[in-house]
Amino acid sequence: MNYAKALQAVEQLMMETVESEVEVLRDASRHILAAGGKRMRPRMTLLAYEAVGGTDMDAVLPVAAAVELVHTATLVHDDINDHGLMRRGRQTINAIWGRTFALLTGDFLFTKVYTLMAPYGDLNVIFAQMTSELVEGETLQAAAAKEGKLNREIYARIIAKKTASLFAGAAKLGAKLGNGTPQQVEALYQYGFHLGLAFQIVDDILDLIADSQRLGKTAGLDLAQGKGFAVAVAGNGHGTTVAVAEEPTEDAGAALKRKLLEGNYIQEGRQQARQLAALAKQQLESLPPSAARDELARLTEAAVEREY
Amino acid sequence: MNYAKALQAVEQLMMETVESEVEVLRDASRHILAAGGKRMRPRMTLLAYEAVGGTDMDAVLPVAAAVELVHTATLVHDDINDHGLMRRGRQTINAIWGRTFALLTGDFLFTKVYTLMAPYGDLNVIFAQMTSELVEGETLQAAAAKEGKLNREIYARIIAKKTASLFAGAAKLGAKLGNGTPQQVEALYQYGFHLGLAFQIVDDILDLIADSQRLGKTAGLDLAQGKGFAVAVAGNGHGTTVAVAEEPTEDAGAALKRKLLEGNYIQEGRQQARQLAALAKQQLESLPPSAARDELARLTEAAVEREY
Repeated sequence: MNYAKALQAVEQLMMETVESEVEVLRDASRHILAAGGKRMRPRMTLLAYEAVGGTDMDAVLPVAAAVELVHTATLVHDDINDHGLMRRGRQTINAIWGRTFALLTGDFLFTKVYTLMAPYGDLNVIFAQMTSELVEGETLQAAAAKEGKLNREIYARIIAKKTASLFAGAAKLGAKLGNGTPQQVEALYQYGFHLGLAFQIVDDILDLIADSQRLGKTAGLDLAQGKGFAVAVAGNGHGTTVAVAEEPTEDAGAALKRKLLEGNYIQEGRQQARQLAALAKQQLESLPPSAARDELARLTEAAVEREY
Repeated sequence: MNYAKALQAVEQLMMETVESEVEVLRDASRHILAAGGKRMRPRMTLLAYEAVGGTDMDAVLPVAAAVELVHTATLVHDDINDHGLMRRGRQTINAIWGRTFALLTGDFLFTKVYTLMAPYGDLNVIFAQMTSELVEGETLQAAAAKEGKLNREIYARIIAKKTASLFAGAAKLGAKLGNGTPQQVEALYQYGFHLGLAFQIVDDILDLIADSQRLGKTAGLDLAQGKGFAVAVAGNGHGTTVAVAEEPTEDAGAALKRKLLEGNYIQEGRQQARQLAALAKQQLESLPPSAARDELARLTEAAVEREY
């Protein structure tokens, strides 16, 4: 099975995994899964596996699917907390089915991750660690936003936990399963970690500058809620205090956005992201040449140069 | 280590497991854990382990802790969905820290369950299955309440999934880990399943007749929200239509409560619970005599005769 086929197989497996006699859980799960997404995390698991010489793609599919499902579970719960109405170009689960069912669908996806990971013994330790960090990162973000205390340092901790740990773990899991050497496993972990940081900074910038339609989700929410890169840099070291609205409103978002676009923040963010992506790419030098390694390199560029 | 010491060790392990540099996650987790509870599920895991001849209590502690943590995670999320203000005699996490942090604390507990279960290989399959059913049961309940379509049949499905599957799984996990014979494992599974059904029926009755202070949680919520045993039996086969309020109010609850107390429902429920508990107890006959078996028998009585 080649990489493209494997990516399709991951989609198929996720759809099968969320089968349930409870219709709303199945329908809501499939609703968000069918909306697609960049699938960065399962891509990394599959490619890391191949890059260290793994050949039995079937063996890695459940792990790749689990990584994407745990990410999806947190998106569903994020949309509840952020009152998000659009996600991946579709209405969010909370917008369609309401908060209660959105919360339960997220929980359901969490439980299905256990099902997929059950056969993988020790890999569960890595999986548990990264998932736990992810939730810690989300919580740090919510706490910083609530207290209006987001700054560069806290922002760095937040994105390391909420995004980079899952990217790093996704790559590490693939590398471990493919029987990579300890050096290769570490290199792919570092690759994922740096790429995750870069990816999140770009995500936050796009939240600021892209429009909702292109982005496929409600734009400007982070800003209005006191989250993200722009708030972090503008709220610290620049003498700018960013007031945070209790509930996101058009006005608060628009005013903050104007303020931030006037500064140099967007360019600074893109620049930081490029540096981090370059660090990610460097890690690949310790791997033998392969189509998978090339694709991992390509991902570092795609992640930072994207416009949505 | 004896049973009493093991129960204490489970408490200790849970407290350690929820350690986090993110204070709100640690504090909120410890807040609900420190409030105690009946610990029915970890009791069953520990006792099932001993009842089939398991002797290394240390080996079963993480599984018992995981079982209680997954239960606790769902309680935290339930309290969000039900707007519950009291739980185990304390304010709920959502009442103190707000909905966002309550949701994240529940997610955090879910991830910590992975951490505890990671070393247990195949047992994760059982664990994943029961956790998934638990969430399905919660969802069936929310759907039935929303549609006002709760009846005896749907109620039976709900409690089988949301409560009995976790009780059954908790006992089965202990029995498997203690190297019980297939017959013993099945007997303990059936024990837990029937006890779980009995326990939930009594819980629902207590929600109706006990006062909040004694119960340690807001009483009457199920009723006002169109859930639980009383609604199921009154809404079907008795010609009574139970109107369900969108949000729980004192008046709606009081009116429904009066209606239900006039019927024979409480007595009927207690009677059903006693029958189910007796079925649970019967399963224990296939086990060799032991202090653990006696304690399991005692639990069947305690579960149905309790007043809070």
